[in-house]
Amino acid sequence: MEKVRIGIVGYGNIGKGTQKAVQTAPDMELVGIFTRRDPKSLNITDSSVPVYSIHDADNMRDKIDVMILCGGSSTDLFEQGSHFAANFNIVDSFDIHAKIPEYLDNVNASIKNTTAVISSGWDPGLFSMMRLMTESILPDGATYTFWGHGVSQGHSFAIRNIDGVADAVQYTVPIDKAVEAVRSGEMPVFEARDKHLRRCFVVAEEGADLALIEHQIKTMPNYFADYDTTVNFITADELKKDHSTMPHGGMVMHSGTTGENKHIMEFSLKLDSNPEFTASVLVACARACYKMYKKNDFGAKTVFDIPLAYLSFKDYNSLVKELL
Amino acid sequence: MEKVRIGIVGYGNIGKGTQKAVQTAPDMELVGIFTRRDPKSLNITDSSVPVYSIHDADNMRDKIDVMILCGGSSTDLFEQGSHFAANFNIVDSFDIHAKIPEYLDNVNASIKNTTAVISSGWDPGLFSMMRLMTESILPDGATYTFWGHGVSQGHSFAIRNIDGVADAVQYTVPIDKAVEAVRSGEMPVFEARDKHLRRCFVVAEEGADLALIEHQIKTMPNYFADYDTTVNFITADELKKDHSTMPHGGMVMHSGTTGENKHIMEFSLKLDSNPEFTASVLVACARACYKMYKKNDFGAKTVFDIPLAYLSFKDYNSLVKELL
Repeated sequence: MEKVRIGIVGYGNIGKGTQKAVQTAPDMELVGIFTRRDPKSLNITDSSVPVYSIHDADNMRDKIDVMILCGGSSTDLFEQGSHFAANFNIVDSFDIHAKIPEYLDNVNASIKNTTAVISSGWDPGLFSMMRLMTESILPDGATYTFWGHGVSQGHSFAIRNIDGVADAVQYTVPIDKAVEAVRSGEMPVFEARDKHLRRCFVVAEEGADLALIEHQIKTMPNYFADYDTTVNFITADELKKDHSTMPHGGMVMHSGTTGENKHIMEFSLKLDSNPEFTASVLVACARACYKMYKKNDFGAKTVFDIPLAYLSFKDYNSLVKELL
Repeated sequence: MEKVRIGIVGYGNIGKGTQKAVQTAPDMELVGIFTRRDPKSLNITDSSVPVYSIHDADNMRDKIDVMILCGGSSTDLFEQGSHFAANFNIVDSFDIHAKIPEYLDNVNASIKNTTAVISSGWDPGLFSMMRLMTESILPDGATYTFWGHGVSQGHSFAIRNIDGVADAVQYTVPIDKAVEAVRSGEMPVFEARDKHLRRCFVVAEEGADLALIEHQIKTMPNYFADYDTTVNFITADELKKDHSTMPHGGMVMHSGTTGENKHIMEFSLKLDSNPEFTASVLVACARACYKMYKKNDFGAKTVFDIPLAYLSFKDYNSLVKELL
């Protein structure tokens, strides 16, 4: 079997998860990790994997079939996507929903004869696929997305930016009553605070004004003001012991009707490790990206463009026999 | 908007559901129903819909973009699929899993420049898509399909064939303990009887030997012998009152790992009307079939070949903006 040769740009949590997923995929070969740091300084979990400077990437375009971009959406991807897509097939997890159309256009504009799958992962990504499939099947209906129980990096970061906060973790928690209301088929209309709670675990700096921190969190626009938020002050040791894993999950629910008959479709995820699962989706999408490229299907794509068979390393006849 | 012109072959429960779904789709036009019966005898729910003899279909190929075949798998589709695919784009719900590869080959062989999407619906169909997506994302894992709580037509029919049985309905019921075991991430290995119960409601003929009927049901190979089966004798009136709707549902669960971390993906359906939901999937697939045809993507396809955007009547930019 010809193996798909993969490069990874960025070695944070998603980069590490991607390394693991590529190394266990039977149809893939990991060419190397590309980093902005000094390659020698990278503390890589498998010393047999070559590490390169990100500046060497463009000279290696004939050695890599798909480059998986594992940087952060707010800091890296918006620029990196267009840059790398000019020379490589790429896959990324760009997840700033409001900016996706612009990003898609930018990446598309930089492509001549490569293929990019942007904004994959689980939301956007797998959850987007569920929203699309379920709405297309039952257009007379309503779709609901719930996130959690899990850590929101963006919200945790927003708390850490407050004066007097040493560290913080924020959990997004779906409200059971809301989930049950959707499940009942009644198609409720929700405010933000009806669907999710925000639970914050905060390590304050010595002598900080706890009441002020709590007030600043609870009234923070966009992030917390529209939600019922709880703030728990804990020690750095407690944070490390009880809140250092990265579980996440959520669900997409679609409640629809065919005339007088009601139907509920529900997709849920329960993940021990958000970054490792995200990486697993990226790797399946990298496989699909390369198959589209091989069919001369060039340009900037999303998960909405992928024939599902392309996600698998199995041949089509096996898929039909085993899974259809 | 150019409307997709749809023909429906067969007017059983799925045909009726398809009529309803096509009539509410904003991008479709129902050209007519095609039947083997005398067209005048068809008791159609909307008298404005033209009814034709199935023998007139081949003369109408320039009036129909996609023909949705709504006959039964065991009786009609195996022959009808190849016949209609030679002249029309077709969609069907052929659901005899063991025969799908052969059927796919047959339909493919009869196609010159049309497109067929076979074996759509929810299983095979939507559930197949879930099995493929989840296994591709976490190949180190196990996939489980549960059906029910719902009526199995095949099992009900098998009971009705027993001497002394006037009528019968069989419910397939997933066993909660098995579902919970999968949800726990332990990846259990099941026998058939561990996953599903079979609950039978039987109307016996006057003077029939009830003990013998019960014995014949419970020992019937393939259908019941491998399951824990309950048999309840009821009156024809009770059957009509309590068991004449066609609810169904089920779930696809995938339990997988990335090294030491566990993840569970779960997709479930809860359907008031099995045939109406199946029809809704067929109609979305008919839309996708026509889009593939317009791109000269001819041949016999399955749900594994469909880029998900093709299922929707919305334009691509709206999908990216609203659903990604």
